[in-house]
Amino acid sequence: MSKILRVNMSDRTAVYEDVPEKYKLLGGRGLTSTMISDEVDPTCHPLGPNNKLVFAPGIVTGTTAPTSGRVSVGGKSPLTGGIKEANAGTGWSQLVGRLGVKAIVVEGSPKESEWWGLHVTKNGAEFFPAGDYVGKGLSEIFPDLFERFGEKVGIAAIGVAGEHRMGMAGVCFDDIDNRPSRYAGRGGLGAVMGSKGLKLIVVDGAGAPGVEIANKELFDQGRKKLANALRSHDLTKPGGALNSYGTAVLVNVINEAGAFPTRNFREGRFEDAAKISGETMAEYCKTRGGVGTMGHPCHPGCIIQCSNVIPNPDGTEMASCIEYETTWALGANCGIGDLDVVGKLTAMCNDIGLDTIEAGDVIAVAMEAGLAEFGDGDAAIGLLEEVRKGTPLGRILGQGTGAAAKVLGVVRSPDVKGQGMPAYEPRAIKGIGMTYAISTMGADHTSGYTIAPEILACGGDLDQFDVDKADVVRNFQYATAFIDTSGHCLFIAFAILDIVDGFEGLVEECSGVLGTNWTMDDVGRIGKEILDRELAFNRAAGFTKADDRIPEFMKYEKLPPHNVVWDVPDETLDAVFRA
Amino acid sequence: MSKILRVNMSDRTAVYEDVPEKYKLLGGRGLTSTMISDEVDPTCHPLGPNNKLVFAPGIVTGTTAPTSGRVSVGGKSPLTGGIKEANAGTGWSQLVGRLGVKAIVVEGSPKESEWWGLHVTKNGAEFFPAGDYVGKGLSEIFPDLFERFGEKVGIAAIGVAGEHRMGMAGVCFDDIDNRPSRYAGRGGLGAVMGSKGLKLIVVDGAGAPGVEIANKELFDQGRKKLANALRSHDLTKPGGALNSYGTAVLVNVINEAGAFPTRNFREGRFEDAAKISGETMAEYCKTRGGVGTMGHPCHPGCIIQCSNVIPNPDGTEMASCIEYETTWALGANCGIGDLDVVGKLTAMCNDIGLDTIEAGDVIAVAMEAGLAEFGDGDAAIGLLEEVRKGTPLGRILGQGTGAAAKVLGVVRSPDVKGQGMPAYEPRAIKGIGMTYAISTMGADHTSGYTIAPEILACGGDLDQFDVDKADVVRNFQYATAFIDTSGHCLFIAFAILDIVDGFEGLVEECSGVLGTNWTMDDVGRIGKEILDRELAFNRAAGFTKADDRIPEFMKYEKLPPHNVVWDVPDETLDAVFRA
Repeated sequence: MSKILRVNMSDRTAVYEDVPEKYKLLGGRGLTSTMISDEVDPTCHPLGPNNKLVFAPGIVTGTTAPTSGRVSVGGKSPLTGGIKEANAGTGWSQLVGRLGVKAIVVEGSPKESEWWGLHVTKNGAEFFPAGDYVGKGLSEIFPDLFERFGEKVGIAAIGVAGEHRMGMAGVCFDDIDNRPSRYAGRGGLGAVMGSKGLKLIVVDGAGAPGVEIANKELFDQGRKKLANALRSHDLTKPGGALNSYGTAVLVNVINEAGAFPTRNFREGRFEDAAKISGETMAEYCKTRGGVGTMGHPCHPGCIIQCSNVIPNPDGTEMASCIEYETTWALGANCGIGDLDVVGKLTAMCNDIGLDTIEAGDVIAVAMEAGLAEFGDGDAAIGLLEEVRKGTPLGRILGQGTGAAAKVLGVVRSPDVKGQGMPAYEPRAIKGIGMTYAISTMGADHTSGYTIAPEILACGGDLDQFDVDKADVVRNFQYATAFIDTSGHCLFIAFAILDIVDGFEGLVEECSGVLGTNWTMDDVGRIGKEILDRELAFNRAAGFTKADDRIPEFMKYEKLPPHNVVWDVPDETLDAVFRA
Repeated sequence: MSKILRVNMSDRTAVYEDVPEKYKLLGGRGLTSTMISDEVDPTCHPLGPNNKLVFAPGIVTGTTAPTSGRVSVGGKSPLTGGIKEANAGTGWSQLVGRLGVKAIVVEGSPKESEWWGLHVTKNGAEFFPAGDYVGKGLSEIFPDLFERFGEKVGIAAIGVAGEHRMGMAGVCFDDIDNRPSRYAGRGGLGAVMGSKGLKLIVVDGAGAPGVEIANKELFDQGRKKLANALRSHDLTKPGGALNSYGTAVLVNVINEAGAFPTRNFREGRFEDAAKISGETMAEYCKTRGGVGTMGHPCHPGCIIQCSNVIPNPDGTEMASCIEYETTWALGANCGIGDLDVVGKLTAMCNDIGLDTIEAGDVIAVAMEAGLAEFGDGDAAIGLLEEVRKGTPLGRILGQGTGAAAKVLGVVRSPDVKGQGMPAYEPRAIKGIGMTYAISTMGADHTSGYTIAPEILACGGDLDQFDVDKADVVRNFQYATAFIDTSGHCLFIAFAILDIVDGFEGLVEECSGVLGTNWTMDDVGRIGKEILDRELAFNRAAGFTKADDRIPEFMKYEKLPPHNVVWDVPDETLDAVFRA
């Protein structure tokens, strides 16, 4: 029988509860968003005792379903002030799923500043003092933790950014080689964990009973269909685009489209894009050798394997993983066209406990404010050192794009609801801009990755400048909410958008585990139910349509090379979820 | 004929326009809020080119009406994100009124960082380079300006805080002795002025035609009635409470009521309250002598004369003026029970260009964050020096209470809509707490000074703990909006709340100037119209009832000595303006 593990940091208790009927068919984001909606006052202070942090593996996470090792982390965001779900691919989630733990709910807060760890095994959950791990880099403490608790455990932890309760602090998980590198990065959920005095959660899966599967036959049928789709689509197959060049295969594509935000969203094309591209990463892995690896999985059982380990010139490890978003944020957006600098910054983010997108956005805002020149890699490194130390300047940057811009008096702040924009220029790709604007999460491309049809001719073929995309924006968000609930990586979407058999497989896998008879029609229904809960939370937290807007400067400032402004009518945005 | 002076900082033009019919019966706050509502997109960036800053004398400002030298400054607030009106008492406003200028509207923004002054005379308005005045204290540049433009001009200016575009930057005006000390302090309007590259506005009233008065007889009748009321009420009369001890006469009163916020709103009574009280100020003026003056007017023609000049031990000037709010904010709220330190901090705020309430709130938040000990005056001075220099820490503090608390990770932030609370504990005086919560301005006691009936038995006699005050809270805000429109100091309210003849006089003065036949019933109607415009602006800017709330920590943290929490039902708050 699955359980919910409820961890109270006020009185330091950890108890197992039965899963209420209403939560039984949920997992991942569906479960975190529903529990947060049910249990958290939307007007509470995100760092106060009344916020909660929920960790939930997806419905199929821990099974043999391909590419399904995701964990959702949910809470009220200190970055946006709204509901937040951020997810990561990590073996940690598979261990939690196999232990039969449907969610770990962290609530309350200690009266005084103190730090604890939680050790979860098949026998229960116990606290241990974690003060010794505080103030250190994650790359320093992860090896100690694996030595102490065993190489096969999983670890969720916050870095010093979370200890400082910064709005760009993520929650870090171990990758397949026990690196602290897989992040539920966005929205400052690491700060929520920090506000509760919980430094880390160690999960030991030894003797775990495994995920209960109600209909093994249906599940197996589904996972085979999905695996086949993943193995046959050009983007997701072994040796395909993502596997060969990582997500950074997009650098040249988006740059060519004139939608690669450069120097704090001043231009849509970066002259040094090729130098920080996935192709260059692959070349480094080949020519520099050593630990260099493209096609690295972030968790066991992934078919796509789009992660990477980028080597230094001497073959030692520079950083893992450099995603498209990361090389954009810490590269082009800061005017930095040097992959070695991007790698150094990436490793720092992983060590400090930072969302790389927010980090890149905020460095660029600091450059905009005159604190450094665009393109100055040493200065960017210096700024992240400030964040690590928690100096006043580091605190400013640590609070993320919207807050830092406010403090620094920067009008050109590329954020929605305080959260910095990802690597796609809304002026040049209208559907993703609409997604940023109306997402329940703030500016977030993973809310509904319309880049697929807008740029990649995947799941359709749309004109990037067309503003009439309310339907696709809405439907992508619904489908995404379902995928985030299932426990699969969002990248399965590339395959199942084009291969209907794969889509069926996804639904059958979930039905197989839960014992339901879902069809593809249920995907939209379930996704809508989740979005509706998130939207209701945000409304109660005080969000209005005035928050569903692209920053004003993008309406009057033309973006080269296409010289386009943000011109999607407000009415179009407001109609997406009212349709 | 009155004119509107429209100043465009994008192309550096200053042109006079006729006053549209719909603005003819407005002045002060009524005019600033209406023009901002009409001309500013509520969703614009407050520091971007589309925000505007409006300066408007009141309806009777510039006439012989007593205690009527107020100027309203309006715009979209960088502190709250909503509409803002802040007002000050200053001869500057009387000169503007006498020049027949109903409003000065500042719009646009320069492409590059540059600084300008505007020189307004009866012959027109001209720009002059102001770069030489930038980066210096206001106490340094005001003497230079008066030497350059003549002792009888009036000056509106921003300090370095406004240059830094800080959320706690006020707009500073000259007092009766040409000191830079009268502030339209709240809401960061100095930052808006800074964002437009406008350092100062010099107004020369030489040869001014004076304010047109449509019905001289009615006006004279009104001003005599009001003057008589002011001269006979115990709080406002010469030799009365305000005249003798300044507004700081309230220190002991509010402390006794257990509503004097101490050490960042941890307690409601301060052990050293007497040391920073108005009585102590009066004693210093007497015993230290020199320039020490209680009963100092902030502008010509004031009957109440509640300002002061506080002397150093050697009789030289320490600070002018130390208001109740100021001695509370920089004193009790920071745990500082030393009037000499409070005076030093006050002088610094005046020199830097800061709202003293926000400054005190933010120093206390910094103390809460552990950056200094409560009670450490030297540390408080050091923090304001950071603000002056615009260091990263100074930038954090400069952005005001809500933003600084967010950056510093402080949950106990005593703000509403980002603006720090004034000197009255909402948990211990419910009506003023309701006013903070629902005011269009953020936490603001001057929106509706219910302290009068709740504590001072003026205009009624209410139990401070009673939560059933929706009617009084609403009606005080309506009446206040009218007084802020008339150009009178809010302190006339003490007299006219108790002396109906004075209230009639106020209305007759305004009717006399405008040629209307207003009655006392029109006060509520006009006040409501103004509030409705402000509320509509804020709704369009994205405010909801979730923003009309007292901070969460006051709901679960008991305030000594009465051990009360914030317990006014949300429904009561939401009903105030819906009734």
